[in-house]
Amino acid sequence: MTEKVTMVVFSGELDRALAAFIVATTAASMGMEVTMFFTFWGLNIIKKNQGTIKSQGIMRKMLNFMNRGGSKRLKLSRFNMLGLGTWMMKGLMKEANMPSIDEFITMAHQMGVKLIACTTTCGVMGLPEDAFRSEVDTLAGAAYFLGEATKANTTLFI
Amino acid sequence: MTEKVTMVVFSGELDRALAAFIVATTAASMGMEVTMFFTFWGLNIIKKNQGTIKSQGIMRKMLNFMNRGGSKRLKLSRFNMLGLGTWMMKGLMKEANMPSIDEFITMAHQMGVKLIACTTTCGVMGLPEDAFRSEVDTLAGAAYFLGEATKANTTLFI
Amino acid sequence: MTEKVTMVVFSGELDRALAAFIVATTAASMGMEVTMFFTFWGLNIIKKNQGTIKSQGIMRKMLNFMNRGGSKRLKLSRFNMLGLGTWMMKGLMKEANMPSIDEFITMAHQMGVKLIACTTTCGVMGLPEDAFRSEVDTLAGAAYFLGEATKANTTLFI
Repeated sequence: MTEKVTMVVFSGELDRALAAFIVATTAASMGMEVTMFFTFWGLNIIKKNQGTIKSQGIMRKMLNFMNRGGSKRLKLSRFNMLGLGTWMMKGLMKEANMPSIDEFITMAHQMGVKLIACTTTCGVMGLPEDAFRSEVDTLAGAAYFLGEATKANTTLFI
Repeated sequence: MTEKVTMVVFSGELDRALAAFIVATTAASMGMEVTMFFTFWGLNIIKKNQGTIKSQGIMRKMLNFMNRGGSKRLKLSRFNMLGLGTWMMKGLMKEANMPSIDEFITMAHQMGVKLIACTTTCGVMGLPEDAFRSEVDTLAGAAYFLGEATKANTTLFI
Repeated sequence: MTEKVTMVVFSGELDRALAAFIVATTAASMGMEVTMFFTFWGLNIIKKNQGTIKSQGIMRKMLNFMNRGGSKRLKLSRFNMLGLGTWMMKGLMKEANMPSIDEFITMAHQMGVKLIACTTTCGVMGLPEDAFRSEVDTLAGAAYFLGEATKANTTLFI
């Protein structure tokens, strides 16, 4: 039987996104099935980098302005230091030949990792389906995640 | 065999609490058994909303004053902005017909989700059993959590 | 069959480190096999307390200066208050006869808990093997973690 790994990616920080994609692509390269379920701030990781998200209502507009997201806007959870720490970390990653989050997303998708965006959060935050990158497979809810987790041996909440 | 989901709810933020209860109530509605083990800051979620917790010693008094908790005092982990962001998120949740944390706790309890408060944290922080809402089933330690996790297919640390 | 618990310890805060070691040592005392895989900020928990880490390049030097780590330098994720909150929490732990992180690491090691440091993070951050305490068993990568998780019934991302 194929081993299966499921993840809830709740956090939207650069460091946690990296951890998630390192585990996901390593698992895929070991022949495991992987499903990543992005929710809350984690949706920022798989948003398109360009453009502003159009949403309805003043509160949603404000939220989506502050919380724009996109793989290139993610920050470190520690030592961000107005961007300096994040910039340094990206430099160190490059030096160590580690892919960027952008490259990790494409790689994961090509390796067959399923990328799912949480319907419920999209509803609350007013995110349309086209706010997300083309690598995202579909939108789905918590029941879908639980179905995947039931089939998985390893489930992580990141 | 009934599927089982176990969670350690370590965090005390509104957004993580929401994620925990969405998964818990969805799992329960799918016929799964669910145990939520609240520890550290997560205990704030299941504290009573009213009143001050009486505890012994100046350090515990200070901690329990700053860390009052209660489902209505939870804040967002991001964009709290002195309460404005949290207030906006609650508005968006209401508009999307999502239950409040208060309602989620009652709902989860009625659906048979077991709510457990961590004995060890209660000991360290000086929290008496009556600091918690009536929906909380019991106090128990890490060994109890591990027993539940052993029987569960899916275990999350939130 | 022996039950097995695997953890990714991603966070470097005192409170999350405590949660990890309470679960680890409780599981070990119940006869379970436990593997703790320390990565990113979690590596701070298992760094030696004394001395400065020698690393190459100005960015790594800066990072390792700010991010020194060591079990005695960990801070609370909430209410640190320039160290006052962390100091108070350590006082409360002592009063409740809870081991310090330092003691927990030694205890876990003596109980057979495997402590693993993530090779990839060490590479990116420029951490040599001798930056870590003697209780650390070995350095290994994400594939090793996934192999352990596959054999475990319970896997936590902390």
